[in-house]
Amino acid sequence: MYRHTRELQFTAKPSKPDALFAMKFQELLGGQFGEMTVMMQYLFQGWNCRVPGKYKDMIMDIGTEEISHVEMLTVMQARLLEGAPGEVTAQAVATNPALAAVLGGQNPQHAIVSGGGARPTDSLGNPWNAGYIVASGNLLTDFRSNAAAEGQSRLMTSRIANMTDDPGVKEMLAFNLARDTYHQQQWLYGIQMLVEEGFAEVEIEHSNAELENDDAAHVFYTGTDGSRAGEGTWATGPSIVDGKPFRAEELRPLTDDQGILPAPDPLQFVTYDGNQGPGKPGNAAGARAQGAENVVTKVKDALTGNDH
Amino acid sequence: MYRHTRELQFTAKPSKPDALFAMKFQELLGGQFGEMTVMMQYLFQGWNCRVPGKYKDMIMDIGTEEISHVEMLTVMQARLLEGAPGEVTAQAVATNPALAAVLGGQNPQHAIVSGGGARPTDSLGNPWNAGYIVASGNLLTDFRSNAAAEGQSRLMTSRIANMTDDPGVKEMLAFNLARDTYHQQQWLYGIQMLVEEGFAEVEIEHSNAELENDDAAHVFYTGTDGSRAGEGTWATGPSIVDGKPFRAEELRPLTDDQGILPAPDPLQFVTYDGNQGPGKPGNAAGARAQGAENVVTKVKDALTGNDH
Amino acid sequence: MYRHTRELQFTAKPSKPDALFAMKFQELLGGQFGEMTVMMQYLFQGWNCRVPGKYKDMIMDIGTEEISHVEMLTVMQARLLEGAPGEVTAQAVATNPALAAVLGGQNPQHAIVSGGGARPTDSLGNPWNAGYIVASGNLLTDFRSNAAAEGQSRLMTSRIANMTDDPGVKEMLAFNLARDTYHQQQWLYGIQMLVEEGFAEVEIEHSNAELENDDAAHVFYTGTDGSRAGEGTWATGPSIVDGKPFRAEELRPLTDDQGILPAPDPLQFVTYDGNQGPGKPGNAAGARAQGAENVVTKVKDALTGNDH
Amino acid sequence: MYRHTRELQFTAKPSKPDALFAMKFQELLGGQFGEMTVMMQYLFQGWNCRVPGKYKDMIMDIGTEEISHVEMLTVMQARLLEGAPGEVTAQAVATNPALAAVLGGQNPQHAIVSGGGARPTDSLGNPWNAGYIVASGNLLTDFRSNAAAEGQSRLMTSRIANMTDDPGVKEMLAFNLARDTYHQQQWLYGIQMLVEEGFAEVEIEHSNAELENDDAAHVFYTGTDGSRAGEGTWATGPSIVDGKPFRAEELRPLTDDQGILPAPDPLQFVTYDGNQGPGKPGNAAGARAQGAENVVTKVKDALTGNDH
Amino acid sequence: MYRHTRELQFTAKPSKPDALFAMKFQELLGGQFGEMTVMMQYLFQGWNCRVPGKYKDMIMDIGTEEISHVEMLTVMQARLLEGAPGEVTAQAVATNPALAAVLGGQNPQHAIVSGGGARPTDSLGNPWNAGYIVASGNLLTDFRSNAAAEGQSRLMTSRIANMTDDPGVKEMLAFNLARDTYHQQQWLYGIQMLVEEGFAEVEIEHSNAELENDDAAHVFYTGTDGSRAGEGTWATGPSIVDGKPFRAEELRPLTDDQGILPAPDPLQFVTYDGNQGPGKPGNAAGARAQGAENVVTKVKDALTGNDH
Amino acid sequence: MYRHTRELQFTAKPSKPDALFAMKFQELLGGQFGEMTVMMQYLFQGWNCRVPGKYKDMIMDIGTEEISHVEMLTVMQARLLEGAPGEVTAQAVATNPALAAVLGGQNPQHAIVSGGGARPTDSLGNPWNAGYIVASGNLLTDFRSNAAAEGQSRLMTSRIANMTDDPGVKEMLAFNLARDTYHQQQWLYGIQMLVEEGFAEVEIEHSNAELENDDAAHVFYTGTDGSRAGEGTWATGPSIVDGKPFRAEELRPLTDDQGILPAPDPLQFVTYDGNQGPGKPGNAAGARAQGAENVVTKVKDALTGNDH
Repeated sequence: MYRHTRELQFTAKPSKPDALFAMKFQELLGGQFGEMTVMMQYLFQGWNCRVPGKYKDMIMDIGTEEISHVEMLTVMQARLLEGAPGEVTAQAVATNPALAAVLGGQNPQHAIVSGGGARPTDSLGNPWNAGYIVASGNLLTDFRSNAAAEGQSRLMTSRIANMTDDPGVKEMLAFNLARDTYHQQQWLYGIQMLVEEGFAEVEIEHSNAELENDDAAHVFYTGTDGSRAGEGTWATGPSIVDGKPFRAEELRPLTDDQGILPAPDPLQFVTYDGNQGPGKPGNAAGARAQGAENVVTKVKDALTGNDH
Repeated sequence: MYRHTRELQFTAKPSKPDALFAMKFQELLGGQFGEMTVMMQYLFQGWNCRVPGKYKDMIMDIGTEEISHVEMLTVMQARLLEGAPGEVTAQAVATNPALAAVLGGQNPQHAIVSGGGARPTDSLGNPWNAGYIVASGNLLTDFRSNAAAEGQSRLMTSRIANMTDDPGVKEMLAFNLARDTYHQQQWLYGIQMLVEEGFAEVEIEHSNAELENDDAAHVFYTGTDGSRAGEGTWATGPSIVDGKPFRAEELRPLTDDQGILPAPDPLQFVTYDGNQGPGKPGNAAGARAQGAENVVTKVKDALTGNDH
Repeated sequence: MYRHTRELQFTAKPSKPDALFAMKFQELLGGQFGEMTVMMQYLFQGWNCRVPGKYKDMIMDIGTEEISHVEMLTVMQARLLEGAPGEVTAQAVATNPALAAVLGGQNPQHAIVSGGGARPTDSLGNPWNAGYIVASGNLLTDFRSNAAAEGQSRLMTSRIANMTDDPGVKEMLAFNLARDTYHQQQWLYGIQMLVEEGFAEVEIEHSNAELENDDAAHVFYTGTDGSRAGEGTWATGPSIVDGKPFRAEELRPLTDDQGILPAPDPLQFVTYDGNQGPGKPGNAAGARAQGAENVVTKVKDALTGNDH
Repeated sequence: MYRHTRELQFTAKPSKPDALFAMKFQELLGGQFGEMTVMMQYLFQGWNCRVPGKYKDMIMDIGTEEISHVEMLTVMQARLLEGAPGEVTAQAVATNPALAAVLGGQNPQHAIVSGGGARPTDSLGNPWNAGYIVASGNLLTDFRSNAAAEGQSRLMTSRIANMTDDPGVKEMLAFNLARDTYHQQQWLYGIQMLVEEGFAEVEIEHSNAELENDDAAHVFYTGTDGSRAGEGTWATGPSIVDGKPFRAEELRPLTDDQGILPAPDPLQFVTYDGNQGPGKPGNAAGARAQGAENVVTKVKDALTGNDH
Repeated sequence: MYRHTRELQFTAKPSKPDALFAMKFQELLGGQFGEMTVMMQYLFQGWNCRVPGKYKDMIMDIGTEEISHVEMLTVMQARLLEGAPGEVTAQAVATNPALAAVLGGQNPQHAIVSGGGARPTDSLGNPWNAGYIVASGNLLTDFRSNAAAEGQSRLMTSRIANMTDDPGVKEMLAFNLARDTYHQQQWLYGIQMLVEEGFAEVEIEHSNAELENDDAAHVFYTGTDGSRAGEGTWATGPSIVDGKPFRAEELRPLTDDQGILPAPDPLQFVTYDGNQGPGKPGNAAGARAQGAENVVTKVKDALTGNDH
Repeated sequence: MYRHTRELQFTAKPSKPDALFAMKFQELLGGQFGEMTVMMQYLFQGWNCRVPGKYKDMIMDIGTEEISHVEMLTVMQARLLEGAPGEVTAQAVATNPALAAVLGGQNPQHAIVSGGGARPTDSLGNPWNAGYIVASGNLLTDFRSNAAAEGQSRLMTSRIANMTDDPGVKEMLAFNLARDTYHQQQWLYGIQMLVEEGFAEVEIEHSNAELENDDAAHVFYTGTDGSRAGEGTWATGPSIVDGKPFRAEELRPLTDDQGILPAPDPLQFVTYDGNQGPGKPGNAAGARAQGAENVVTKVKDALTGNDH
């Protein structure tokens, strides 16, 4: 359960409004790697976490902090939009050509839709969507995704910090940059600790290891003419899984399979020259092809008391 | 420029068709972390890469390999869909109750839209979209995102491998699992090499370091009652940036800013009680608030030959 | 700023798992009118609210409660998914035909992507997106949208409650139904209070009233042959704005404007028969048509010190 | 069935073109609460309506009128875009700095994609999508959504009306404002009439009333420190369902359920510390957990002639 | 302006309900090539059409007919969903295993969201979106897109017709198939007529012909090893533009441009090895690189009365 | 399998950077009809093609060429963005008013997200999505869609070519225009060849011909008052399927079906006046209505050895 305090986590006061900067600033709020993304990603990971104690608490703690970050950014946005021009264009341009640039560049939905408030979108107005986030239940893979998201988020914050010289905005961004620095490390330390405590054997995803094609786990394939990629340690260094050396090879087919497809269902009117014999409707041939016949036998057994 | 060879990179032959498995298998092709995602992510990163030689070649090489992976998966899909039931439901159910389960669970667009071929969507039919990928121009952050994507991709592949006992499918997935194992390491080695070669100072995103709020870069905030997250190394270990220790603190406001917003533009009809004084339309007050007046002066200078 | 407590707001324990119900249950979490929608809608409205005190607090309070609701639902989902079949289909169907129905109907991403956890999507897997929410800054219109959202949300909850007889699920849904009942009223009372306290003149959006075409504000147009819609009070009753009676009229053009369009820009290769004379490129004709010439004059004045 | 008349419902003639205004104007056509939204919402509600006569006719009538509104707006857009600059930027800027502002701010798809015609998108180019609309079959909840949509639509129209001083545009917007005023009332009268005629017991959604947790239907929970929300009538006034008083309480957990999740399926590689005992694959444990075993028994009975 | 008649254009009565078929049937209503797509595509093309008379009327006529088709399909959907199982799953499965298949396969939103009515989505629940349609203002290109859309639409209709043996459904689909047959020809005849009447020179898009690289307009490039594509008339036949022969060539770079990128802006922290010399911030170098300096000169002239 | 060559297919060098043009140029890369669309459309069609030899090779060849086109465009974009202003706005505007126009109009994600590189989006930032493409397995319908896509793509390219006078950009666009000219013809020749070689009977989609309502295949319906559409050859010319003449008729209902819907399931709380008798829950009435009872009988037979 959650509770709210009126004070923000950190001050969010620009020295003066700037509608053009507010347009860009949306990227930090509702963009692919904005604060809404990390907030929702951590909340879902925390709620789905199956390791109570320090791991679940850690994810919950940062998820809670991120709600507070989204709050800070929305307040900053509304303040940046104070007095933003939302009136008759012609008059505004007449007053001032610099204003014309602002009018051309500002986000019209800040005036039309949100009345001078923040929007849950990126800098080009794409609504935030949950296709940006992941919560797999596997902490190692999720911590890697989190470290990556914090890195991308910090890079965007850093770029945007160079687009303003407003000391109030810069002060808040200095706080955000620091949190992103810290949070990247938090997730990387988390990965180390998962391995130390036996939740994973190595620091990469390696489940179902016994299924793996061992040879293919040690090759770098070069697919570009004259590629120099074989010079990297990724092509020479030892596997961190088993210590065996990597090697570089030229990308080539490992099969003579040319991807010829089976005969199509004639009732689907797929263009076909008969090279795989006549196609049959899914109903008859399909039932058999799907192995349904055998299943019927098994089902009969099951229903007549024959528990498998 | 790209060229094509008829042979696939690896064999993609199921032992028998399985329409219900094909429905799930779409996740590996067109899902958030499917092969379309890594293909498009690496292609865009490679084309945008500003470090010719081993880095650019490496990204180009793997991008090219991933196109071949998407090809393999589409062939596998079409073969899994051979003879898939796409006909009158009632007749099909009458033949066989197991078939009824298949009919309930299969992807209708495999019959209606693609005629037994693969679809560029995830397992629930969401069309693949470019909101899944990133290419920031900064290789360190992108390599982190790539390592994360390969980890998520491998986890999904591993889960799906447990959902089939078809030896042909398992053989191809064993290849894919191995590539994901290798590729995770490739990106992690890439990060190390970027630091070794001086393209970054530490293995995390840390641009604009001097701007950063130093204190906030060393604190873990607990926002959950009774949180045990302070027990983790993320709250005790040294910063990998400067070696200074981290500490845990209870999440609390670092400001008395309660997020009170400025007076709105009265022409936008925002509900307001006057607590910040009268609002003014953006046109007049707004132009001034935006600092446009000062800019006019500067513009005049610029136009009258006074270059700043 | 926000804080978190380990206990849920309300118990979320199903009597037994049910993967097929969990698939449907996603609609209440990440659907168009699910809990993620009201959570994000109220948070954005609260952060953007310009009336501190009881209005802002009220919106903040319910926004905070809704985070807790999303938390409850995700826990319920993970429990409904316990032991959900995520393995080889053929074996599963052999065991049990009823299981086959479950396998056909369950959400594959619950196994492949989230590892038995909740997903931020609706029942058909559409990722939640911010196009579902609104925060206009105008409390009256937003409270109307909120009352509507709570109504739709309650209706879905009510329909889903009829799809289970699990007492644990029903107990939680009984709580949710009640909250939706209460919250609908909360927003309707809020609208009344806004009018009573002078934040709006009537209980509908009526800004810029003086601009309005008065006659068109009192007519119901029937556009269906033999429509009986004129029998409703909406066509006879008095306007709640000015008390004047409504009337029904047959839908008819109020103009002889046939929507003939102007000549296109010839450089855009729009098919055109010349009926409006020759089109001209936007560059020359366009500048003039846009009134840019006049603006230049005004800009000159502004730059030469002539403040308008 | 539908028919078309060449004349528009209302004149749609701007006094002069204005490409920058046309960019904003898209919000009224293809935005979240634009005319495409109400058109499609009412059409789907009308086609799905199960109460022939005045209710179905009323929804059909307004749905038909809204098609005509979309038509009016597209004509207005094409006329606003007459002579819009779609040519070489450098030349255009040289002519005129005010034109430069227009060039920076206009919608590039108006030139590139639609050739000077309207686009089915909002002001930032997001394509209209059906996630904006609802048609639940329940007239009371849908009428509430409709009243809300008309309110939001009117507010946007009103804001946009303040952004132009073109008398032709203003005349059409005066008509639209009036229709939105009327339509809000139409839906509110519709709700009253549904109650009067016995289609609902109260003016809110209250189906499955007997299931509801009665206590939770009468409490306002404050989740913000020092919240003053308890001062509102929403926290003191009587329930409009049963007349019982509301009360305000501090938000607190109503349970000791800490959301601890069950053991995961080991084949899904979810990170887990064993706190709920060993997890089992869904196939075996899952089938039983899902209650499938019992269902088999019932199915046997059904198949052996034992009709339940 | 539009009007409505209560009678449908064509009968839409299934012989009996079929919820599983209704799930698939959504594809014809709200899918990529469903009736909503052609309805909205033709309406936007018609409203944007600049050739009054037979062309504009023709597009308007078919757009109007398509609204009626969407209406027919929604009625069919609601009838197919009569008595669809929307209740407790366990009880339903107990009654009947065939029903279990239906329960697994039906669209949950048909019960939860629309209450047994049609949904504005495809068969997998993707909301219809305007990214499916085009209205370019150029009738020749749009008529080609329309012919293509009618073809895809007819193919889907044909496939779905094979999935039912309900005579009522088949009767309506027989009507729809015929309309798609007719409409494909309508658009192809339209293209011919545009050429005959001088609105285009050839039956393909060929604007700005003089700009074109003439050689590249006559080559087929083979990019696949051993490609036999050179055997097709597309590689041998004469150009329909100028009668010159086509030829096949092997795909090869026509340049030695290796795509090396310029130095990045150092303030954007793009990884870079200096191979193009030092990068400069966009502010100083950028302004110059963009040619802004020259534009200033021209603007000065314009403002001092020197009209170009 | 695919391979890569460092050289581009064609030179992609602008004479000078132009950030404002780069914003528009995105439409050619990631727009609805941009190069990403034809690349992905042809790749999926090629992989799904069931006619090995010249048809499959041809689709594969052009798909491979299109990857190279996407590569060319991304390189062009990065070069157009060289030195693009991504710094403090106020300083930039002070330098130069023309720069202000650029700042207002450029794509902020070019600086914030991609660091001066191309984005996988259209000119307004909509991420590319797979809802733009089709691969039906039927070559005739897909070739029509391809010809249409090439036409729309060429028209956009042509419009954009008029927006620049940069000789380097124009040279590359001249190549692209030519390829679009050639490719349109390639697909049209492909359709002819499919008919000549017996893969289709006529040049339109006409599967399931015997099902079709023959009369409806020969009528043009006029739905607009005073429509002159009957003057077109589409209303007079012979059917290309059977040579029979077309005719024009006024659009009218062909049925007395008024679309009255069946009684709803009372457990879904759909508003209903009883005009079709009492509704019944789907569970009981629904099972019967769905014909499930009959299916049970058939299933019994199937399970007791009675193969149909």
